[in-house]
Amino acid sequence: MSFSRVAIIGLGLLGGSLGLALREKLPGVETFGYDRDPATRARAAERGLVAQVVDSAAEAVLGCDLVILCVPVGAMQEAAREIAASLPAGAIVSDVGSSKRSVQQALAEALPDHVAIPAHPVAGTEQSGPDAGFPSLFDGRWCILTPPANAPQDAVERLAELWRDLGARVEIMDAEHHDLVLAVTSHIPHLIAYTIVGTASDMEDVTRSEVIKYSAGGFRDFTRIAASDPVMWRDVFLNNRDAVLEMLGRFTEDLTALQRAIRAGDGDTLHELFSRTRDIRRSIIDEGQDDAAPDFGRDH
Amino acid sequence: MSFSRVAIIGLGLLGGSLGLALREKLPGVETFGYDRDPATRARAAERGLVAQVVDSAAEAVLGCDLVILCVPVGAMQEAAREIAASLPAGAIVSDVGSSKRSVQQALAEALPDHVAIPAHPVAGTEQSGPDAGFPSLFDGRWCILTPPANAPQDAVERLAELWRDLGARVEIMDAEHHDLVLAVTSHIPHLIAYTIVGTASDMEDVTRSEVIKYSAGGFRDFTRIAASDPVMWRDVFLNNRDAVLEMLGRFTEDLTALQRAIRAGDGDTLHELFSRTRDIRRSIIDEGQDDAAPDFGRDH
Repeated sequence: MSFSRVAIIGLGLLGGSLGLALREKLPGVETFGYDRDPATRARAAERGLVAQVVDSAAEAVLGCDLVILCVPVGAMQEAAREIAASLPAGAIVSDVGSSKRSVQQALAEALPDHVAIPAHPVAGTEQSGPDAGFPSLFDGRWCILTPPANAPQDAVERLAELWRDLGARVEIMDAEHHDLVLAVTSHIPHLIAYTIVGTASDMEDVTRSEVIKYSAGGFRDFTRIAASDPVMWRDVFLNNRDAVLEMLGRFTEDLTALQRAIRAGDGDTLHELFSRTRDIRRSIIDEGQDDAAPDFGRDH
Repeated sequence: MSFSRVAIIGLGLLGGSLGLALREKLPGVETFGYDRDPATRARAAERGLVAQVVDSAAEAVLGCDLVILCVPVGAMQEAAREIAASLPAGAIVSDVGSSKRSVQQALAEALPDHVAIPAHPVAGTEQSGPDAGFPSLFDGRWCILTPPANAPQDAVERLAELWRDLGARVEIMDAEHHDLVLAVTSHIPHLIAYTIVGTASDMEDVTRSEVIKYSAGGFRDFTRIAASDPVMWRDVFLNNRDAVLEMLGRFTEDLTALQRAIRAGDGDTLHELFSRTRDIRRSIIDEGQDDAAPDFGRDH
């Protein structure tokens, strides 16, 4: 076992799933947890998300050899400061946040004397809170580690081993590249889903009831994505601003080109794109990152 | 029973599901079918999508009291012309296309002496072709009828009854309003899904393999939508151009406002929108148009 005592700070979907996965897959590891919301702590104790729920972040990390911060990326620095004084000297600190440059900087500033290895398991659901977690969340998903240049190789390897033990596949890349990749595979999709759901809610000539009734034509899938945790996502956009704006610029250019094709009645351009996008879908299914069953039929 | 002999022209996902639903739910109705692709006809006959697959549209409609055109909306007029000479005098003609103004016009032009009642069952999956259909596709989904002003009331009622018998809920509205509503609940979501999947495929600094590996962060749901039938969707955008461009303009304005909020670090604007969009999701689940189970976990 790469670690013997693990502290989880933040007991929502990710922190809870992590605790449950540790209990199921590495039952020898002791787990401690804290959440700043007392109701979440109470529910986490009821569900047994960690072996012991304690009343402060500082207490949770006592004696731990690994701390994983599972809070919104905008709250990382504050969480790191809360544990700084009681964090054991050799403990490794990591996280599960969706942007990595900002987290790397926040951890380096708040914990200059510790090894911090930011991580991002690319997994989640549209639900949040202490009831949302489940132990198989990371199975077959990728966990990206973004160790800073000075991170000891053996610490990186221990953390990678833990994630593999929890069912994930591990990739290592630098924080800047992570932020660019995830801007396109996660952040922009969320941003445009939130946007179209907002646009649809604000119309005068189409009622809200109509939007809801006829949502099976595609819209309901966007509402699913747009039901994700608002604080988490606010923080992602504020903390990965440059990459998000860069990718948004490219998306908008491509959308403008399609708009022009529609206006001009240029069916060939539309057909060429609509055919090309099917290939990437097939690759995602072949790679095990999604299910081939026709989900719009929703029979599960 | 509102009809005794039904012809289905086009035996893909929609036509096939319609045939299977008729067989299961209205076994007394005789069904005839045609598709212009010989391979689709052969497969439709093997699967029993209709009781009898024939070799021309003109033959399929002989003796029928209802014909449902299940071809891409750009092919409606041609299909209507093919059946014009052999269509029985009292037969009603309908369709399942996703845009209604253009279909209403195409049918009125090609079949001036018949009753044509365009319809749109708001149901589908990301799959297409003669293997994709299944009989429960319309269960609990809405079917929108857009009868022209001169349509006989009893014909509208007979068609509505058929759709109810097949498991759908029926709404009646004018074609223009249909096209506006569906632009926002279906057409724009598809357009932006196709766009972002295209944007992601064309990047130089993020590889295709990375896009695929890390797709579980939201992107894979867009690829599902962007795997829909290219010809069908090309035709939708060409045939519902005005409403799509209008709604696309509103979407782009809203996206630009969010872009500005991200650039300015305005977390309150982001948080306000991201919280508001959750309500619509809840209403969609309450209305039975989607499933509350956390689908990003994909365990089915």
